[in-house]
Amino acid sequence: MDKRQITLKDIAKELGLSPSTVSRALRNHPAISKETKGLVQNYALKHKYKPNTLALQLRTNRNNTIGVIVPEIVHYFFSTVLAGIQEEAEKGNYNLIICHSNENYEREVKSVETLLDARVCGILASQSKTTEEFSHFQDIVDNDVHLVFFDRICTGINTDKVVIDDYAGAYHAVEYLINSGCKQVAFLGSNPHLPIANNRRMGYEDALRKHNIPINKALMQVCDTVELAREIVPSMLKADTAPDAFFCINDEVAAHCLQIIKSTGFRVPQDISVCGFTNSDITEVTDPTLTSVDQHGFEMGKTAARLLINRIEGKEVKKGIVSKVIKTDLVVRNSTR
Amino acid sequence: MDKRQITLKDIAKELGLSPSTVSRALRNHPAISKETKGLVQNYALKHKYKPNTLALQLRTNRNNTIGVIVPEIVHYFFSTVLAGIQEEAEKGNYNLIICHSNENYEREVKSVETLLDARVCGILASQSKTTEEFSHFQDIVDNDVHLVFFDRICTGINTDKVVIDDYAGAYHAVEYLINSGCKQVAFLGSNPHLPIANNRRMGYEDALRKHNIPINKALMQVCDTVELAREIVPSMLKADTAPDAFFCINDEVAAHCLQIIKSTGFRVPQDISVCGFTNSDITEVTDPTLTSVDQHGFEMGKTAARLLINRIEGKEVKKGIVSKVIKTDLVVRNSTR
Repeated sequence: MDKRQITLKDIAKELGLSPSTVSRALRNHPAISKETKGLVQNYALKHKYKPNTLALQLRTNRNNTIGVIVPEIVHYFFSTVLAGIQEEAEKGNYNLIICHSNENYEREVKSVETLLDARVCGILASQSKTTEEFSHFQDIVDNDVHLVFFDRICTGINTDKVVIDDYAGAYHAVEYLINSGCKQVAFLGSNPHLPIANNRRMGYEDALRKHNIPINKALMQVCDTVELAREIVPSMLKADTAPDAFFCINDEVAAHCLQIIKSTGFRVPQDISVCGFTNSDITEVTDPTLTSVDQHGFEMGKTAARLLINRIEGKEVKKGIVSKVIKTDLVVRNSTR
Repeated sequence: MDKRQITLKDIAKELGLSPSTVSRALRNHPAISKETKGLVQNYALKHKYKPNTLALQLRTNRNNTIGVIVPEIVHYFFSTVLAGIQEEAEKGNYNLIICHSNENYEREVKSVETLLDARVCGILASQSKTTEEFSHFQDIVDNDVHLVFFDRICTGINTDKVVIDDYAGAYHAVEYLINSGCKQVAFLGSNPHLPIANNRRMGYEDALRKHNIPINKALMQVCDTVELAREIVPSMLKADTAPDAFFCINDEVAAHCLQIIKSTGFRVPQDISVCGFTNSDITEVTDPTLTSVDQHGFEMGKTAARLLINRIEGKEVKKGIVSKVIKTDLVVRNSTR
């Protein structure tokens, strides 16, 4: 923390200008005259004011800022992805600005505009559940701004992407449940039009097929929120073919499913096994602790950011699309046999 | 989702310009000539291309974007604050960009620069644990950009702030534990140089004083991470004056404290009560569920954003500093008697 670093105020005082004039001159603002800009920028250079940013401002119109668009923020997985992006951005000396689409198409379009207005040099994006029109992503590419999709990719746009192997993650988790003796494995899934939900469903079904277990639609439910779990799980437990295992699309549903099972008088895992997806922090505090599929969000964030930075710096020269797949791991705890 | 909305590409094609020229013309970029800007902006206006942003770009040099600086992002409380900020920003039709200081002073300084470079019209900030020098916050004010601090405020800067009543939150939680019959209430706290930690400690001590319970330093520990809890809690349980209640600085520590107590053979809450702070999502999935102090992060976010927007729009005319305090509530669940 170098206390001798000169501030905007010092420059303004020294040159008899207002701090905001100095700041705008440093940022090459159109409202400031060439003369003033030269005066301020030379003085700032001479006195090493914010050297990195300044050098950058002088070198290029674009700043060294990367933009990120995430659909959710009160969300363990996307938070860990952001942490991974941050680490890689820091390594490369890039600034990071994050926009939150809140699963809303209009917010997503606005976010693209906001990031282009901020003249970022690259964008990392994961699309909102409600997005069905993609020209705003095309605008990014048309603006010669590098774009990398992560997790929720948009297949219509010709750009790099980093995805998680949801199919294999689900397949191995369900196979683990079957090998531990479960015969009635329920799948609490999500909206099938989402690729990640669909891939996990296919992994679930293929694991059953491989072990010659008939696919029972009654055991497959769209149940991706705590509210839905409170409705659906009790009725599934009352059914004739009650599940002896629940494979859940996320850890929140799995944790509440586990509670509902216990409150109904069944034992976990002796009577019913429960498996989540994400391997979030709550897996350690449930009783029993929760078996879950680790998506390696931090690694996904690092991989996506590294790919983007390589594109920005011309280190990733591959002409076509680069598609990276993050492998998952089943983390076995005490909620499964 | 209007599919007939014209894209940047359409304008470029129509006017025989490159998409990036069109985009920069729309964003009033210095490198583009007045003539081209006029041509593009008139065409875009005529064909209703991104009307809001455009109108705004034409009206002012600053865009209608609010910047936020948060110290942590894989963190329930700050996520809920961000959600509250987002809701209020959407209501006011402001865009939001978020910077993550990651509890790092240099990142925080960079974040301020990044947001000023993005020409935001206001900034909401909560400072990093490692920040001891504040001229970067002063730069914001010097640039005539509105600044509102939330939660972790910087007393050195003369600007609006929104804080949580940590003292009262702790006081009432500890008094509740005492009234339920606990006589040896332990405080698992945080670094005392942090105002929020210090206020909670004072609330804890004053509640004991009011009920004529001597303050026992052995029951007050700096223990704000899961790792520290695993070290400290077992030894506290072995001590002669073992606690009959734990008041914890956050829910993660409380949830793991609860597990350690159970694994040691004590019953929660019959032998030992446990109370957390934040009222995060994990309070619902522990067994027993966790009593916690609700900080109302969402309300704090809304309040801070509303205050900032009122300043930006000249609706908050109060000359001096506006200081708002968010009240807390104790949410009683099954981990306390």
